[in-house]
Amino acid sequence: MADYVYGPGRTHLFVPGPVNIPDPVIRAMNRQNEDYRSPAVPALTKVLLEDVKKIFKTTTGTPFMIPTTGTGAWESALTNTLSPGDRVVSFLIGQFSLLLVDGVSSICALDFRMDEWGVDVALTGSQKALSMPTGMGIVCASPRALEASKTARSVRVFFDWKDYLRFYDMGTYWPYTPSIQLLYGLRTALDLIFEEGLDNVVRRHNRLGTATRLAVEAWGLSNCCQKEEWFSDTVTAAVVPPNIDSAEVVRHAWKRYNLSLGLGLNKVAGKVFRIGHLGNLNELQLLGCLSGVEMVLKDVGYPVKLGSGVAAAAAYLSNSTPLIPSRI
Amino acid sequence: MADYVYGPGRTHLFVPGPVNIPDPVIRAMNRQNEDYRSPAVPALTKVLLEDVKKIFKTTTGTPFMIPTTGTGAWESALTNTLSPGDRVVSFLIGQFSLLLVDGVSSICALDFRMDEWGVDVALTGSQKALSMPTGMGIVCASPRALEASKTARSVRVFFDWKDYLRFYDMGTYWPYTPSIQLLYGLRTALDLIFEEGLDNVVRRHNRLGTATRLAVEAWGLSNCCQKEEWFSDTVTAAVVPPNIDSAEVVRHAWKRYNLSLGLGLNKVAGKVFRIGHLGNLNELQLLGCLSGVEMVLKDVGYPVKLGSGVAAAAAYLSNSTPLIPSRI
Amino acid sequence: MADYVYGPGRTHLFVPGPVNIPDPVIRAMNRQNEDYRSPAVPALTKVLLEDVKKIFKTTTGTPFMIPTTGTGAWESALTNTLSPGDRVVSFLIGQFSLLLVDGVSSICALDFRMDEWGVDVALTGSQKALSMPTGMGIVCASPRALEASKTARSVRVFFDWKDYLRFYDMGTYWPYTPSIQLLYGLRTALDLIFEEGLDNVVRRHNRLGTATRLAVEAWGLSNCCQKEEWFSDTVTAAVVPPNIDSAEVVRHAWKRYNLSLGLGLNKVAGKVFRIGHLGNLNELQLLGCLSGVEMVLKDVGYPVKLGSGVAAAAAYLSNSTPLIPSRI
Amino acid sequence: MADYVYGPGRTHLFVPGPVNIPDPVIRAMNRQNEDYRSPAVPALTKVLLEDVKKIFKTTTGTPFMIPTTGTGAWESALTNTLSPGDRVVSFLIGQFSLLLVDGVSSICALDFRMDEWGVDVALTGSQKALSMPTGMGIVCASPRALEASKTARSVRVFFDWKDYLRFYDMGTYWPYTPSIQLLYGLRTALDLIFEEGLDNVVRRHNRLGTATRLAVEAWGLSNCCQKEEWFSDTVTAAVVPPNIDSAEVVRHAWKRYNLSLGLGLNKVAGKVFRIGHLGNLNELQLLGCLSGVEMVLKDVGYPVKLGSGVAAAAAYLSNSTPLIPSRI
Repeated sequence: MADYVYGPGRTHLFVPGPVNIPDPVIRAMNRQNEDYRSPAVPALTKVLLEDVKKIFKTTTGTPFMIPTTGTGAWESALTNTLSPGDRVVSFLIGQFSLLLVDGVSSICALDFRMDEWGVDVALTGSQKALSMPTGMGIVCASPRALEASKTARSVRVFFDWKDYLRFYDMGTYWPYTPSIQLLYGLRTALDLIFEEGLDNVVRRHNRLGTATRLAVEAWGLSNCCQKEEWFSDTVTAAVVPPNIDSAEVVRHAWKRYNLSLGLGLNKVAGKVFRIGHLGNLNELQLLGCLSGVEMVLKDVGYPVKLGSGVAAAAAYLSNSTPLIPSRI
Repeated sequence: MADYVYGPGRTHLFVPGPVNIPDPVIRAMNRQNEDYRSPAVPALTKVLLEDVKKIFKTTTGTPFMIPTTGTGAWESALTNTLSPGDRVVSFLIGQFSLLLVDGVSSICALDFRMDEWGVDVALTGSQKALSMPTGMGIVCASPRALEASKTARSVRVFFDWKDYLRFYDMGTYWPYTPSIQLLYGLRTALDLIFEEGLDNVVRRHNRLGTATRLAVEAWGLSNCCQKEEWFSDTVTAAVVPPNIDSAEVVRHAWKRYNLSLGLGLNKVAGKVFRIGHLGNLNELQLLGCLSGVEMVLKDVGYPVKLGSGVAAAAAYLSNSTPLIPSRI
Repeated sequence: MADYVYGPGRTHLFVPGPVNIPDPVIRAMNRQNEDYRSPAVPALTKVLLEDVKKIFKTTTGTPFMIPTTGTGAWESALTNTLSPGDRVVSFLIGQFSLLLVDGVSSICALDFRMDEWGVDVALTGSQKALSMPTGMGIVCASPRALEASKTARSVRVFFDWKDYLRFYDMGTYWPYTPSIQLLYGLRTALDLIFEEGLDNVVRRHNRLGTATRLAVEAWGLSNCCQKEEWFSDTVTAAVVPPNIDSAEVVRHAWKRYNLSLGLGLNKVAGKVFRIGHLGNLNELQLLGCLSGVEMVLKDVGYPVKLGSGVAAAAAYLSNSTPLIPSRI
Repeated sequence: MADYVYGPGRTHLFVPGPVNIPDPVIRAMNRQNEDYRSPAVPALTKVLLEDVKKIFKTTTGTPFMIPTTGTGAWESALTNTLSPGDRVVSFLIGQFSLLLVDGVSSICALDFRMDEWGVDVALTGSQKALSMPTGMGIVCASPRALEASKTARSVRVFFDWKDYLRFYDMGTYWPYTPSIQLLYGLRTALDLIFEEGLDNVVRRHNRLGTATRLAVEAWGLSNCCQKEEWFSDTVTAAVVPPNIDSAEVVRHAWKRYNLSLGLGLNKVAGKVFRIGHLGNLNELQLLGCLSGVEMVLKDVGYPVKLGSGVAAAAAYLSNSTPLIPSRI
């Protein structure tokens, strides 16, 4: 009954996605299918759509919870708002004035305010900071984006918002079968975020991101992001010296310490490894990871001082971590 | 902690999808996320792709397990093989000679032989006869369909087979994040099907379909399919008399007996109700459902003889049900 | 990953215990261990002890939730209240006036009123009408029983109430490690019972018990309980004709129809089979079971009319089953 | 849906019991009740009894898997082998020459060899190094202990081995209802131990125990065990200076860092806190805990150098931790 490549104890999952799922979400998803045409599923959906708007900080937006990944959510955002021939500048500025935002790594992790910032379309994937399994792409469209979707001539069927809107109007909500399990999982994921407080969740991400950057610095490695304004509170990419293969860091972490780190991709392949620190995560989990990275660095021949990164991170965390509100 | 609209005992789920998930599949999916770039997930995927071919009865086909629903799987099948302007006759005959088959309700339920029948593309959804949650669309392409996809000019990004094929070649298998839970769920769903024997699964569907049709006949209702060759072993649509609203049958079943039946759709709305009998299901579950339908029919004013449908179905099942092989 | 002796579809569990666990309870128990000395577990325990009193209908009793089975709960009840040499009449009348009641099959299933009836000790097991896994014996002691326990000279250590009372006073509640999972399972089991309403739960047991007795009668079998006042709403024992071995009925039900029935025990071994109809169960589940029993009876050579028992039961249920309150 | 006293991220459970349950065991237990009189449960039990003997390193012993806690297992061991009036020296030497061993914290964690050492009765509880929920006490009796039980005059009913032996002979194995969930959980717990290798499990405990003691030393705290031969590889009790209340260490760890540590009990209450490091646990989990303890010590006013304990532990672990065999 052991899974593939079993190792004792917990796997330490620190890739930038998919992320650790909190136990209450796993529990909520541990369930049978249900008829999505019964009154129960629309009732659940209706409340979810209202609550999802809160994580985008919008009151005027219209969310779509699409059975797909972040990639599909992107396709949905683009094909519903653009037409062939439209000029798109880095996917950041489109024809209907246009601000599209890839919130895949930021919604529920970084400060994000759809209405206040005038964002037209924003999106995320369930396996990112929402801390759920993969399978739900959430797209949120501003009134202007909805308007644009009426005339956009890009081809789309599965990802077409029109179908959703039609079923929203009917009160049945689903043009095709949703995952019952993900709906209940989202319910609990949102409950946990609201209980902690969205702003506290963002602060926790900043705390863990800062701690990680301090550890990387203490190890004498440089951050792949060279300017502070580019720093990410969801993932840190550390550059290894030229004599070390960062892919070996990742492989070794997994083989010896049951630790999953992220590979460098494309042009930084072999040069950086990434520590994902997003989602439902706390200080001691991160410190366990950082102590593991230290041992791995030593193993692959980098002259790290064991305990140095953990000490730097802990010094910061020990000053900044609040008491757990429900336990005071 | 009770769910929305709680009722005592089990919900009897007899819609044509999503269907009942067997406990071992729920158990297998009760798990954390994993890094899909670790060696474990490709190893699991590789075996799954081989095993999935067995349920299509193909050795030459190439399967794609796409994070989407059956609708998305259809879009994937069409956009990868057709170009704008191609003539498609009822989606059955396309340009590359072309046999596309919607196996959403038949794969793992009815006799289906992709290679032997020369099918070019076939597909199913995880929430149908595979008896899993919604979220995985499985498309299987023949060599000819793969060839056609190289020149097909339909627009597709998320659903593009090209990306999958590139990652198959690399041995990492996934162009974007898969649902770890659905992969392990599929592993167990296939294990159960292979343990029962795919042909036995098909026979069981025929047995339960036949029993249902006998019950409908005993109740004096007519089958929406008027010719025997149109009968389906996965769903039975029963026509109610004009003075009865079939939507009321469905509503009442759910409100009084915790029984989920399927509505009639589109032009048979209000005129038929549907009994889904596909997926991981056995004789006594079906007989429980049929006894419920009898009571509902009585409740809505149809002069049914209680026990009549169950007796007809049981007479047939009692002659045709084999012993459970593992228990002999 | 298939379990021992796998069969397709659900197992129909109709023994008098352990009984079907509702999905929300399974879900609630799907969890990690916790430190039982943290503030969370005593807080949970405190509320559970209050709520457990409600299912005994007592306000003056003191409940003990002991990590054991019903048998152990009995030993706890006896050893804490009796001394060697005490005369016990059929375990019903003991020295301290003494009314001990074995509620193993009745608490949460039949009308039971500890305070009103002046019961001194009553008990149940988690795997009975509470519809949980085995492992928690719940004993409830009246003030008089508590008083008697101070002087009772029977030997007991693990089952001694004194230890519990000491930890109750300290507010930590547990003299030794409880099952965290069963505590959360009990929380949900009680939630479900209170949502349905304890009196409605009792009525449902009466309804299902009556329906079962009508089916047995329709089959032409006699009830092992020969007087109506002995009828049980939790289990029905049907007497088979001398030419039939009731053990074969039970074996065959399991081998062919995935149906678990109860054997006759001791002097009725081979002569009766038992249908358990207690716990979290509904009408269609029972009718599925009854249709299965009919087919089994036919298979073992008893001249049953298929559909007869189901028809008799359904006629009664169709007149007596209320709408599900949360769905009206 | 959040539990009592919710905090973000995982709870770090480092009490000496109950311990962390591995996900595959939680998964295996996520299931319905079953009839324990069907052929499936005895078949499972038979193999479990054989496999349980391996963790005691006995071929001649007879194991009993009793629905109780470690305390109950002790009562079972004593009452079955001793009679009133027997002299028992510290529970270590009894009348039938008598070596009874409390293996509650050692079976599956420390080197233990029942046959080779001539142990008469040994026992453990499921929530200890087996890494399961509480609820199963496992007692293993030597042939001599079994012989003694025939004449022992201590009072016992629930804990009586005689009943078990009678059902072992019949091949049904259970004198009363077992927890189906714990049986399947034990199956998986043993699978994981055997896959890792029992001797490797013991080595891992030694490794984590040594690392913890090095951390305690680096913090400048003394170990409550003053002689090396008393050191435990399952729990370490660290003595705090007189100006610090160790209970405050435990409370604070839980309130600020979601870390569960063990209190000092009885005469060391307030003077020591305990770090449990037994069961299914790995290096990075422990290092996360140790970094948490450091921050807590700083918070309560102890002049600890952050990173010092982690560095000492990591230096040792980095030299002694093997690659994970299944991942090489």
